[in-house]
Amino acid sequence: MTSRESAISREETDLRLRQVRQALGRHGFTALLAYADCWRSSNIGVFTDFRPVDGVGEYAQGLLLIPIDDDPTLYVAAGARGWARAVFPYAVGQLSDLVDDVPRWRLTGAIGLAGAELVPGTLLEPLRDRLRPHATLQPTSLLSMVKAVKTPRQLALLRHAAALNDHGLEAVRCSMATGRPHTERDVARIAEAAMMNAGGDGVAYASMVQAGPRSSWNLALPTDRTIAAGDMVLTDIGARYRGVAADGGRGFTLGPVTDRQRDIVDASAAAVDAGLAAIHPGLSAADLNSVIQQVLVDRGYADHSGEAKGHGTGHGTGIDPEEEQPWIEPGNPTVLAGDMVFTLKATITVPGQGGVRTERIVRVTESGAEAFDQFPLRNHW
Amino acid sequence: MTSRESAISREETDLRLRQVRQALGRHGFTALLAYADCWRSSNIGVFTDFRPVDGVGEYAQGLLLIPIDDDPTLYVAAGARGWARAVFPYAVGQLSDLVDDVPRWRLTGAIGLAGAELVPGTLLEPLRDRLRPHATLQPTSLLSMVKAVKTPRQLALLRHAAALNDHGLEAVRCSMATGRPHTERDVARIAEAAMMNAGGDGVAYASMVQAGPRSSWNLALPTDRTIAAGDMVLTDIGARYRGVAADGGRGFTLGPVTDRQRDIVDASAAAVDAGLAAIHPGLSAADLNSVIQQVLVDRGYADHSGEAKGHGTGHGTGIDPEEEQPWIEPGNPTVLAGDMVFTLKATITVPGQGGVRTERIVRVTESGAEAFDQFPLRNHW
Repeated sequence: MTSRESAISREETDLRLRQVRQALGRHGFTALLAYADCWRSSNIGVFTDFRPVDGVGEYAQGLLLIPIDDDPTLYVAAGARGWARAVFPYAVGQLSDLVDDVPRWRLTGAIGLAGAELVPGTLLEPLRDRLRPHATLQPTSLLSMVKAVKTPRQLALLRHAAALNDHGLEAVRCSMATGRPHTERDVARIAEAAMMNAGGDGVAYASMVQAGPRSSWNLALPTDRTIAAGDMVLTDIGARYRGVAADGGRGFTLGPVTDRQRDIVDASAAAVDAGLAAIHPGLSAADLNSVIQQVLVDRGYADHSGEAKGHGTGHGTGIDPEEEQPWIEPGNPTVLAGDMVFTLKATITVPGQGGVRTERIVRVTESGAEAFDQFPLRNHW
Repeated sequence: MTSRESAISREETDLRLRQVRQALGRHGFTALLAYADCWRSSNIGVFTDFRPVDGVGEYAQGLLLIPIDDDPTLYVAAGARGWARAVFPYAVGQLSDLVDDVPRWRLTGAIGLAGAELVPGTLLEPLRDRLRPHATLQPTSLLSMVKAVKTPRQLALLRHAAALNDHGLEAVRCSMATGRPHTERDVARIAEAAMMNAGGDGVAYASMVQAGPRSSWNLALPTDRTIAAGDMVLTDIGARYRGVAADGGRGFTLGPVTDRQRDIVDASAAAVDAGLAAIHPGLSAADLNSVIQQVLVDRGYADHSGEAKGHGTGHGTGIDPEEEQPWIEPGNPTVLAGDMVFTLKATITVPGQGGVRTERIVRVTESGAEAFDQFPLRNHW
């Protein structure tokens, strides 16, 4: 029901199911329950093009049951079954029947729950009660590890999505070069429109554009503040393209730039450069994090960077802008492997001076890393 | 930190807090805990311009504590505190401290929980445990009723957002009129780009565009299917504008149209027309639902319309595309009051023929209703 380019083949669906079943065996689970909602749909999107539709109701949710030795069942809202049946090659059930269906599953022992942190308590509690005493639900990260390694189809889509990010930033650069005034909202709109006109399906998350003093906040949405000469500008804008998401960040200065501003932009870029150079299969996420974190500390930003403080310097990305693995942070023993895709990021926010975030999308290759996004990291306009 | 047009004044914040405290007293609650996430942010957005930032982590969440006799505290992710403090006139806390802060709240008795159906079990359970034995959390709809009646500022924004929807559909009509081929994704992109170029902040939810046989599904996302002469097309596209969302739906036929297709479009429109004509302060949501439902049944679509089957014919809208009240459905005793804003909708999906959804945004006036969107309901292109 979607283009050849984005459709998940029966072979890809079955590959992912096989990978999950092997992991279920290793973990001693009898089945996996994968929960997703329309905004964090990767726990289902890794198996099928079906995605819950935005809303507050049950149609914003989906659950995929994968018994270790039986066919899967995709539970969706009643109104979404027509579409789900057209794209998912196995059984499709109705979410409102989920809890009543439990006895029919005839499952015992430990059932792994993927996306436990997303499941509303109002759904989790009755489900857990209905499974007792024969079976228990146990949060598991096994699906996160399966999702972390992308398929060739996913890699091709992610490369294109990253190119859309580059295109959006280039449109911003060209528009700023006219010299006419731009507000933060203008910048977001220019980037988003360019990404969409180039074939994107919109944004992967609410765009952040923060200018002047607002750039010294880690996170904020754009306003009508006009970007002024001397401002630092933090942008964090990502394209959605055919079922994948591209998370990316760049900062820039406008007009006259102080040495300190130039150093903030360069240190943020240098930290990410160092991380990119350090990547190779076998490196742990924690060790990769140390490389980026150390650059930020060495450059003197220990007090003005969440990444320097150990809050993490990257995260998995793919179907969702943020996926659980590999999360590049202290203490994460996850070992980088070929075709894992994740972001590398370094945010520096200095009150009074402003700040920037550099964030790139990278793939682990046989011997190193490939960066998907190509827009320059050091921008002074 | 946002434009004068969209900034929530201190007076508006205090008005909403006053309305909540009055309701807390009526319900016998000692406080309200309002949960929101970045996608369903109205439980916080009704009080402040702050909105959690998209993501999988805690920064996608926010909690507002409103004691009945003390100042409120807004809990946000550490990285979002800078922005939150700039726009929220009361205390801002850190989400990671929430559970540890509970003793400092010195709250006893029953605490109302708004957004209970959204709270992840992983947050709800530790919070409930920490409140014991002095206080209990009880899901409440009191905030839903407060949100249902819009302020003059919200009404002005919603009128403009609905005009953006009209503009997006007009752009689609003009582009289709060129006669060149359009895919479902083209139609979504044309409408979204037009809304953004006219000042919109993007879409309020993932756009639905379903052509030909796909239009006979209630819910689906757009694909590369080229819209062909003879197709019915279902569109459900809404603009986001300065903190409010516009939910809207229109269907159209392309080229030669059968009598049955014309009747489907007309019956869907006629059902919504009848609902609009019936609205007045004092009418119950259930009685309004009956008016729309009956038209669909009388027109012979009892088996081919969720609305005809009693699944509801509209819902609150405002900061979120879907807000809880007034939900226009059987059994909802909510009485319509002035300046409540909600949608009226009628979906008809006939396998083999296709389908459409007509959905409009309306405000309850002193004596009747005002429709915010003006694009024609009966479209044959």
